[in-house]
Amino acid sequence: MKTSLKNRSDLDTPCLVLDLDILETNLRKMQAAVHSAGKNLRPHAKTHKCSSLARKQKEAGAIGICAAKVSEAEALVKAGLRGILITGPVPTPGKIKRLIDILAMDPSLMTVLDHRGCVDRLNAALGERGLSMDVLLDVDVGLHRTGVKPSEAIELAEYILSRENLHLRGIQAYAGQVQHIPSFDRRKIASHQCLQEAVPIFRELQSRLETCTIFSASGTGTFDIDLSVPEVTELQVGSYACMDVEYLDIGSAEDDRQFTPFGPALRLLTTVVSTNQRGFVTVDAGLKSLYRDGGTPRIFGSEYSGMTYHWFGDEYGMVTCPDNIEIPPIGTILELVTSHCDPTINLFDRFHLIRGTEVVGVWPIDLRGCSQ
Amino acid sequence: MKTSLKNRSDLDTPCLVLDLDILETNLRKMQAAVHSAGKNLRPHAKTHKCSSLARKQKEAGAIGICAAKVSEAEALVKAGLRGILITGPVPTPGKIKRLIDILAMDPSLMTVLDHRGCVDRLNAALGERGLSMDVLLDVDVGLHRTGVKPSEAIELAEYILSRENLHLRGIQAYAGQVQHIPSFDRRKIASHQCLQEAVPIFRELQSRLETCTIFSASGTGTFDIDLSVPEVTELQVGSYACMDVEYLDIGSAEDDRQFTPFGPALRLLTTVVSTNQRGFVTVDAGLKSLYRDGGTPRIFGSEYSGMTYHWFGDEYGMVTCPDNIEIPPIGTILELVTSHCDPTINLFDRFHLIRGTEVVGVWPIDLRGCSQ
Repeated sequence: MKTSLKNRSDLDTPCLVLDLDILETNLRKMQAAVHSAGKNLRPHAKTHKCSSLARKQKEAGAIGICAAKVSEAEALVKAGLRGILITGPVPTPGKIKRLIDILAMDPSLMTVLDHRGCVDRLNAALGERGLSMDVLLDVDVGLHRTGVKPSEAIELAEYILSRENLHLRGIQAYAGQVQHIPSFDRRKIASHQCLQEAVPIFRELQSRLETCTIFSASGTGTFDIDLSVPEVTELQVGSYACMDVEYLDIGSAEDDRQFTPFGPALRLLTTVVSTNQRGFVTVDAGLKSLYRDGGTPRIFGSEYSGMTYHWFGDEYGMVTCPDNIEIPPIGTILELVTSHCDPTINLFDRFHLIRGTEVVGVWPIDLRGCSQ
Repeated sequence: MKTSLKNRSDLDTPCLVLDLDILETNLRKMQAAVHSAGKNLRPHAKTHKCSSLARKQKEAGAIGICAAKVSEAEALVKAGLRGILITGPVPTPGKIKRLIDILAMDPSLMTVLDHRGCVDRLNAALGERGLSMDVLLDVDVGLHRTGVKPSEAIELAEYILSRENLHLRGIQAYAGQVQHIPSFDRRKIASHQCLQEAVPIFRELQSRLETCTIFSASGTGTFDIDLSVPEVTELQVGSYACMDVEYLDIGSAEDDRQFTPFGPALRLLTTVVSTNQRGFVTVDAGLKSLYRDGGTPRIFGSEYSGMTYHWFGDEYGMVTCPDNIEIPPIGTILELVTSHCDPTINLFDRFHLIRGTEVVGVWPIDLRGCSQ
């Protein structure tokens, strides 16, 4: 979607901008890292909620796109994307019906399974529609949120194999709990420990079944760590495309004080709206436009460095200014790196695309609100 | 909007339901309290983001509706609502243009002012369009977020009075910082102290100008306290309609351990999706469907009392079960009272309306995402 070209400062606020130069570099760097490790990339759309961005990721070389919920997969499939993996359970009759409706449009759709009851319901529903489906076994490697326990994984895999409408293609092992460990070395040890719980399961399944070829794992915080695990075949990373303070502040292989591989492509523009106080101003972005999670949003750009954002209610933020800086006047637009990109993006209907200071387009956040 | 009648348990989750019996009682009780104090009610739509609910509030006797942002006012005016007061600053040329565009549709629209620069810009823009507008002086009574300092209020009021296109109709004094003080008695003292900062300003303006008749104040936490302040003429309460844990847990005049005047009309339905652990299950509502602010969502209803919700990532929640309760099976639907209703409502596109267990309709959350 194109807009009439205009300057970033003409945008009404609060709004989200995507810096295309940084975004494209992020996409290229992740794809290159995955490619040189001989693995595949199936990035997660739960972060950016945007089928246009997902299409860019596929154009850059991704083999497919991950979705957390059925409703996200619906939006992606309807937008023409293929190779969708739903990374969470789809356990109820209503959800399974929605799943099979999109499977009929996209036979490459995959989902995960972590429970016999879900296996039975999905298999039966597929049978009623005369369809079959590729699935992954979701293995719990310590997050304990979804997934079968490693000790029960082979048994559940055998159960899936015995169901006529399900094709077991491999496993998923997501270690969400280690993604934000600040120290790179500790994160590396923790992630390896988690994935080693799944490795023997994958090897066992591989040895029994030649179509069992997928080991999906990883997140932005451990992408380079997990690329060194020989059994892992594909990454389901999400935040690397947009980035946020929460990820920028963990250590990386190159620098244990900051995460250097990817830059802050996503920023929020906010305007100074009230200046009656000493030492701080009020801006027009609060809880409803910056999700309060993962720390505090950070001022982007050198012009206003030294200023600090603070939460100030549903509609407003406070930006404090050091004594040596004059407070910015009403109408000043500040740029923030969001604290946690995923839920913040989910508050907006569009990304404004920028190159330098120029607004060059708009992408609808068409998966926004797809929580079902 | 009507849906084909169905049972609450047929709704896909996560989703928001509004319990109409409780909602109607809440609306009636607030309207009755305001009426018997001889005051007016202009409830805040920033909470519910729904023009259908706003219309119910007007049908119950409200004289108008408050909006926090211009984009909310646009949606309300377009839905046919009148008597809109924008309670936050509208300071930039772009926002002022949007404001005047809706003023042309609704001459009863009002906004607040807290700065000379904003007065000048609004007055000039109105002049260019050949329009004039009712405004309130926003007085800062201790929140320090917006509003003129009490010591500078009369001077700014005189400045507004000297501008040809602005009609000063009174003041706004919102003490957001006292709304959630747990003790009713302490909250009462704090709110009175705040409002007393604005009372002399309002008296002075009243004595000079007979059209200066509005003193807008209050929130759900202090509605009954502020009704006893003789100068206050109208309340801009919001959360009382839907309610949340944050408000239900403060003391009230009747009971200092809970807020008894209003009930939890708003609930979120969530489904158990994974049950591989001992002592807890995973449900399908996380940060993206329950805004993480104001405490923890609470299980509603006696059937599952004793269970506790915990945050468990963007898409999921953990619900722990006491030892003496069997964990609920996959597919079980739980009902939660949200921790902070305003930003949670802003995550959804519709309320499902229920009476008892029957779904009787849908209201679009048409102000969702209106953060500009």
